[in-house]
Amino acid sequence: MAFHLLQHDRQGAQLMAQALQQAVASVRHCSRCHTFTEDEVCEVCRNPQRDASKLCVVETPADQAAVERTAAYRGLYFVLMGKLSPLDGIGPKDIGLAKLFERAADGQVQEVILATNFTAEGEATAHVIGEALKARGLRVTRLARGVPAGSELEYVDLGTIAHALVDRR
Amino acid sequence: MAFHLLQHDRQGAQLMAQALQQAVASVRHCSRCHTFTEDEVCEVCRNPQRDASKLCVVETPADQAAVERTAAYRGLYFVLMGKLSPLDGIGPKDIGLAKLFERAADGQVQEVILATNFTAEGEATAHVIGEALKARGLRVTRLARGVPAGSELEYVDLGTIAHALVDRR
Ligand SMILES: [Zn+2]
Ligand SMILES: [Zn+2]
Repeated sequence: MAFHLLQHDRQGAQLMAQALQQAVASVRHCSRCHTFTEDEVCEVCRNPQRDASKLCVVETPADQAAVERTAAYRGLYFVLMGKLSPLDGIGPKDIGLAKLFERAADGQVQEVILATNFTAEGEATAHVIGEALKARGLRVTRLARGVPAGSELEYVDLGTIAHALVDRR
Repeated sequence: MAFHLLQHDRQGAQLMAQALQQAVASVRHCSRCHTFTEDEVCEVCRNPQRDASKLCVVETPADQAAVERTAAYRGLYFVLMGKLSPLDGIGPKDIGLAKLFERAADGQVQEVILATNFTAEGEATAHVIGEALKARGLRVTRLARGVPAGSELEYVDLGTIAHALVDRR
């Protein structure tokens, strides 16, 4: 990308450099949910319309955006900015779990919804967080696993069908 | 395929023609579950190890094979050999729903698991069958909808995330 900009769009490169510099200088983490923001507390956390009794835990701001797009969730978030990954040496301290436990114990949160990815590392992260929060007396739920909307069984992997069978309702 | 065989593999074409002819002559529908078989009653329906209290309704033999591959289901099946599709003029009679209702009322079936596809037509089919079976006093369940195993939220469509939120557990 750098080569392309230098050869074809030097003005664009200049603008991008400025924007990046500005972002580096002004973007920080929300003190409540840890997502990226330019303020001390982000817009979602400041919004009095949001349901403060629900806290949705996601891995990244992109995952948070995915949940927001559904317009099906009106609670608050905690963004891990990562996931547990023992093989890469990423443990509970590196993804700020202590901060999450503190946040979830604010007295308002009644349900923590684990929305980490359905990958091996995301599942492990959900498990560790879930056990810790349950031990603290909180109600913990997990996004449903199953067959995605619009799909034909024939083309769905067998692990997913097996889960959908176990979790049938 | 026909051109390829005629040009490169005339012997293969001969063999395939014979196999097809034989299949057309010998393959019929299982009298209990309606799937393809060469016998009066198929191997699955004949197997005394299968749990006769559960009946899984699928659209096609390929979907049945997908559920079988999971090795997570030990009940029996009913294969619709199609789905309701009002736009194409395919109604309850065309997919043998009367036969399904009769099969489900054998006195042994205690739960009917609707495993039609999660497409618009598959969902409509599941709805119609479900209502009719419930009216007959049967317990009806549906495969869980949700986020498929191995996937990252960021790349999952919003309808699926919304369902996974509603069905969280
Ligand atoms: Zn925030
Ligand atoms: Zn059969």
